[in-house]
Amino acid sequence: MRKTALLVIDVQKGLDDPSLGARNNPEAESKIASLLSAWREHELPIVHVRHCSVEQRSPLRPELPGNAFKEEAQPLPGEAQFSKSVNSAFIGTGLERYLRERNIVSLVIVGLTTDHCVSASTRSAADLGFEVTLVADATAAFERKGHDGTRYSADAIHNVNLASLNGEFCTVRTTEDLLAEIT
Amino acid sequence: MRKTALLVIDVQKGLDDPSLGARNNPEAESKIASLLSAWREHELPIVHVRHCSVEQRSPLRPELPGNAFKEEAQPLPGEAQFSKSVNSAFIGTGLERYLRERNIVSLVIVGLTTDHCVSASTRSAADLGFEVTLVADATAAFERKGHDGTRYSADAIHNVNLASLNGEFCTVRTTEDLLAEIT
Repeated sequence: MRKTALLVIDVQKGLDDPSLGARNNPEAESKIASLLSAWREHELPIVHVRHCSVEQRSPLRPELPGNAFKEEAQPLPGEAQFSKSVNSAFIGTGLERYLRERNIVSLVIVGLTTDHCVSASTRSAADLGFEVTLVADATAAFERKGHDGTRYSADAIHNVNLASLNGEFCTVRTTEDLLAEIT
Repeated sequence: MRKTALLVIDVQKGLDDPSLGARNNPEAESKIASLLSAWREHELPIVHVRHCSVEQRSPLRPELPGNAFKEEAQPLPGEAQFSKSVNSAFIGTGLERYLRERNIVSLVIVGLTTDHCVSASTRSAADLGFEVTLVADATAAFERKGHDGTRYSADAIHNVNLASLNGEFCTVRTTEDLLAEIT
């Protein structure tokens, strides 16, 4: 695991905004905290990604309290942090160069939300040649409405998006499975 | 529509390979042909993207007959073509520069498959600042199996992936709707 970085995406307070609708996986943040503890204990690389929205009505704008990381995902001094304003953590940031300079070739991705920033970042990482593991229960999604008005539950959005990513862009695993491998 | 390019992704014979499982939207290719005709009639920009797989068992390897474009999506002389070996049409290609040099700021995306190369390319395009329209009935998906063995139908994969993209990365529309706007 020496060269596997834990990439923690957008675990920010603003994503508790009720306007976002129903979410699944309420335990995602505690799973993320467990993985962060394990990575720290084994002195493996950790990268935190923070969304700094430029959209007028986003709770993740840099000047708002919602931009702050949640308690479970607070970076420690010395851990790498990158800010982004689009979905993929690899667009408009120095993340790719940072990883390559450190010979980090594989990533374990966790965070919010499964189908937006997590999926976009997973896809970019895989297309750029990184080996990606995506942790199913350390990610979460919100319910969404399709262009024709059909409503999809948070679980449907989460599970189908993971199925679309698995095997093509990443290997989907669970927190328990990864912790057993590390320890 | 002068600066809106039609981006046609991976409409290649190899995607008829039975090993890929059940697909939805059998009329996607005829919808793509209709959109190509309309774009040509109005002399709007068209870009064809071809997947040249480097995976051992892919029917889209460059030396295989499956690499060829389907009849409905054959490029005409003078139409731009880009080859890619990963999912996003913007990674490892000159596509972004090509579009920027021509001041093309908006894209209508069609092709195969909804949740893999179409979604990845839509996400990249949006994150790079292009305005993207995705045509629901001119794309199609295959059934997939999740990491826990759950099976998802081609329609479920297609519809949920469109819902995840709509409003965040693109506007999802129909062929009929777009043709009415153009003509």
